[in-house]
Amino acid sequence: MSNPFFTYHGPISIDKISKLLNTKIDINSKYEITDIKDLSKADNNSLTFLHSKKYIELANSTKASYCITNNSLKDYLPKTCKPIIVENVLMATSIITSNIYPDSIEDEFDSKVENIEQVNLKNNLEHGKNVLVGENVDIGNNCVIGHNTVIEKNVKIGSNCKIGSNTIIRNSFIKDNVSILDNCVIGKKGFGFFPNKSQNYRYPHIGIVIINENCEIGCGATIDRGSMSNTEIGKNTFLDNQVHIAHNVKIGENTIIAGQVGIAGSSIIGNHVRIGGQAGISGHLKIGDNVDIAGGSGVIKDIPNNTKVMGYPAKNIREFLRENK
Amino acid sequence: MSNPFFTYHGPISIDKISKLLNTKIDINSKYEITDIKDLSKADNNSLTFLHSKKYIELANSTKASYCITNNSLKDYLPKTCKPIIVENVLMATSIITSNIYPDSIEDEFDSKVENIEQVNLKNNLEHGKNVLVGENVDIGNNCVIGHNTVIEKNVKIGSNCKIGSNTIIRNSFIKDNVSILDNCVIGKKGFGFFPNKSQNYRYPHIGIVIINENCEIGCGATIDRGSMSNTEIGKNTFLDNQVHIAHNVKIGENTIIAGQVGIAGSSIIGNHVRIGGQAGISGHLKIGDNVDIAGGSGVIKDIPNNTKVMGYPAKNIREFLRENK
Amino acid sequence: MSNPFFTYHGPISIDKISKLLNTKIDINSKYEITDIKDLSKADNNSLTFLHSKKYIELANSTKASYCITNNSLKDYLPKTCKPIIVENVLMATSIITSNIYPDSIEDEFDSKVENIEQVNLKNNLEHGKNVLVGENVDIGNNCVIGHNTVIEKNVKIGSNCKIGSNTIIRNSFIKDNVSILDNCVIGKKGFGFFPNKSQNYRYPHIGIVIINENCEIGCGATIDRGSMSNTEIGKNTFLDNQVHIAHNVKIGENTIIAGQVGIAGSSIIGNHVRIGGQAGISGHLKIGDNVDIAGGSGVIKDIPNNTKVMGYPAKNIREFLRENK
Repeated sequence: MSNPFFTYHGPISIDKISKLLNTKIDINSKYEITDIKDLSKADNNSLTFLHSKKYIELANSTKASYCITNNSLKDYLPKTCKPIIVENVLMATSIITSNIYPDSIEDEFDSKVENIEQVNLKNNLEHGKNVLVGENVDIGNNCVIGHNTVIEKNVKIGSNCKIGSNTIIRNSFIKDNVSILDNCVIGKKGFGFFPNKSQNYRYPHIGIVIINENCEIGCGATIDRGSMSNTEIGKNTFLDNQVHIAHNVKIGENTIIAGQVGIAGSSIIGNHVRIGGQAGISGHLKIGDNVDIAGGSGVIKDIPNNTKVMGYPAKNIREFLRENK
Repeated sequence: MSNPFFTYHGPISIDKISKLLNTKIDINSKYEITDIKDLSKADNNSLTFLHSKKYIELANSTKASYCITNNSLKDYLPKTCKPIIVENVLMATSIITSNIYPDSIEDEFDSKVENIEQVNLKNNLEHGKNVLVGENVDIGNNCVIGHNTVIEKNVKIGSNCKIGSNTIIRNSFIKDNVSILDNCVIGKKGFGFFPNKSQNYRYPHIGIVIINENCEIGCGATIDRGSMSNTEIGKNTFLDNQVHIAHNVKIGENTIIAGQVGIAGSSIIGNHVRIGGQAGISGHLKIGDNVDIAGGSGVIKDIPNNTKVMGYPAKNIREFLRENK
Repeated sequence: MSNPFFTYHGPISIDKISKLLNTKIDINSKYEITDIKDLSKADNNSLTFLHSKKYIELANSTKASYCITNNSLKDYLPKTCKPIIVENVLMATSIITSNIYPDSIEDEFDSKVENIEQVNLKNNLEHGKNVLVGENVDIGNNCVIGHNTVIEKNVKIGSNCKIGSNTIIRNSFIKDNVSILDNCVIGKKGFGFFPNKSQNYRYPHIGIVIINENCEIGCGATIDRGSMSNTEIGKNTFLDNQVHIAHNVKIGENTIIAGQVGIAGSSIIGNHVRIGGQAGISGHLKIGDNVDIAGGSGVIKDIPNNTKVMGYPAKNIREFLRENK
């Protein structure tokens, strides 16, 4: 199934991919790729990509039939997956993704929204003044939506949800009984791009934001959608005000995140984690279950389960407090 | 007097309290409690609560006739105050408070607001487009209110106040000559709840936000209302942009708080305090008068009057700079 | 030329300046000053100011005919520039500036905005619902402006710009191909004032915000306009969400600033600088070109070109990591 949230301009032939990337792919040039997906989600009609040794285990079992990669990584692919060799894997992946989903690059406002009073939605929806709703929006029973809130295209909201005022949501899947408070921006593209001298090259973001049951998202939160995978927040996880969740982040269940915390791109946070105010977590990290991160900490490496950390860089909390008496 | 900001569903009989908390209270079962208040504010028609040894001095002089507490704390109460023994004092307090003030738990948008042009307000009010005003709102003379701002129910604004655009205010008392800039959210419930496996239990917030004369609140600020007491900002205190003030915080007069500072719940900040950008102050602390907190500091313990601190954890600034040459 | 963004109430005679500052200026009392500018921009009809030894080199070559200064600095001025001696140079400068540009002190909302549909703007503008536009606004070709956004007075926007929803812009010059995302506040006055016991004295801000070509500004950003000079962001510089840029800051080209970073007033950031999430930079600093500042760092001193720093206070990154293994 292709991505349901962005307009699909596929399939794309191997011949066209070869031209777009300015590289030779010697076989099956008329063969058409249906979609581009990460190593674990790709099926045998998919193109995937491998850009780092971190992922060679996943590469080994990918079902994709083609993979954008480079010379030093190509041998980690299974025989069923043909390498497409390029110099800059992520840039090439970006070019093909943009071609299949051209509207996933920019975040121009949704010009097709209508006032909610002109839209046919389910029963028992209570809404404020000046609420705008885009296309491909589905809202469950017994929801409330505050004043001046904009639900742009590609949003599915469950039942018994409470959305505040002045909030903007796009490209998101909000499950039952979720509260999103005022002034949030949920589902915009992440801060991913290739730096370039005269004009940076923006990375497409075909992931969405998924917020699971019973979550609460505080005021002024920004939760960016993913690039190739989704940004996801587990059940019954609560975020305080002014929290920033970057693209591709996954947060577990029953986690508590205090005010002004920031989590950088692609980090994975476990279940029952407690993160104190203003703590920051670098990108591409793995924080285990039942972890306590003290307020103000700066986490720059993985943290195992059942650990309490503090400081910058964050370390065992007892050690930190002993050293800083 | 009952709380004027939340719909009052009291009084409540001791018999009903006994049933709600599933505990035996052996005497006076028909006796009716008028209100629930903290130890110092309770009068002899009030119920109060004692959950920590920190407050035994206050408990000793409370005028409340009943007090929710536990077995190990009950003996600190005066004879005029009868203990109601429970296992989890705060949870029990929360249950009774929710019963007396049922609309203090959620922050659903105020669906009864009207466009300001349809509301009878005092003279000399200048307002932008699309300004919405709720019930129980009073606005003084010579105020200005910017575009798309929502003044929800239970707000009293003094004279000569300037409210920016895209700002949301509820359950707040703003005194004369206060400026609140754009994109703020003032008076929402605090981040207080009891973690619970399948669904966290939200704590009621019957406190309000009080902003005293001559204050300025920068853009994007979030100031949460108190749970059992108020969140209060003293006269002539200025906050820069993107500051977060949690529930129950009290800030003194003539204090200066730079951008992106966060103050966690129930901390008390003195007069003439200067807090540099991005500094964070943990919850339940007492920061004295004339204190300087350097930008970026993380304060995790009380700070006496007339002290300059820096670092994480914040310590004497000279010591910090000597150690970090 | 006088400042085109604030209503000009000049010229002002030396005699009037003398009275306003309660100081004697013995010559040329009828002489009229056209404008007030900083040392480097002042011409021979201008008044300027010198308040710190930091600027004696600039003072030496100023073209201004008068300069507000104090007794200990007056001898650094050239003979063509007559000193006006006061006790508090910045307070006096503020008083005169407020007199020439009285509407540069407050940031009351712009009450003269109209719905964009009633305003004559250039072709090919795509806009959302409830967009408001003030006087002295110019918008280039092929721009898009999202819902509920307010472009207040004194804004020039280039071609191919994308402004998000719920954003407020005033007193700003946005060049071609700039993206400003949702919920931003661009061009409000900075957090500059003189503390004063009963009521702080607000400093006028006659600078603007300049955002150069190809920049992207993330959601929830606050970029304050300058006091006596401008706040400026160089070409192709990208800011992530929830970034705060204070007044008078200058940022170079091709710089990347991650989420929740804060830059305090008057600091200068070079070209090709990378600043990690939640890093803070104190005021009045100079950060060179090609500098890397790790996420969470607190920078409290100047950083030379081609340097990588980390920590609080930020130091050489290798040294920091060695000390914090």
